[in-house]
Amino acid sequence: MFAVIFHADIAQLDDEYFTTAKHMRELAMTEYGCLDFVATTEGTREIAISYWPSLDHIKHWKQNTEHLQAQQQGRSRWYKSYKVEVVELLRTYESPFSH
Amino acid sequence: MFAVIFHADIAQLDDEYFTTAKHMRELAMTEYGCLDFVATTEGTREIAISYWPSLDHIKHWKQNTEHLQAQQQGRSRWYKSYKVEVVELLRTYESPFSH
Repeated sequence: MFAVIFHADIAQLDDEYFTTAKHMRELAMTEYGCLDFVATTEGTREIAISYWPSLDHIKHWKQNTEHLQAQQQGRSRWYKSYKVEVVELLRTYESPFSH
Repeated sequence: MFAVIFHADIAQLDDEYFTTAKHMRELAMTEYGCLDFVATTEGTREIAISYWPSLDHIKHWKQNTEHLQAQQQGRSRWYKSYKVEVVELLRTYESPFSH
């Protein structure tokens, strides 16, 4: 499995950000094969991780027109800076008391 | 480069948690070769990512006695559940407007 880790320094989030983020998440999961998505925001720092079955899935999602527009909005309005890391999962451990 | 992604569902964080987390971070970075550490907590969800030069570095840190004790505290007091993912970084992109 593969994942994309998105680190951002937030400039300002408005209503359109939340609408867009929700729509992007739904589109990625229903039409582009995204397996899972988790995100936490603390102050101006955001970490969001999406999980994918292959690098080709990530590539196709990266080329989606709405996603490209959302990224442009991110650069111009919502984020001061961001970093994206594409990673391959090697091992996963879950706590034995997990559900 | 490699990274360890820690996802947790927080039960309750006390003063000892913050003292321990700070100490673990310093120990990992000064004595175990950890390259970077980022974490965000939103509500009861925490995502923390540490970066390492090799899997051997991660293995050595995993065996540190104080770290093992901190993990035990995490299981018994601070976290309801958690998941750990060991990943290899394949590519990194930074926003051109960074810095």
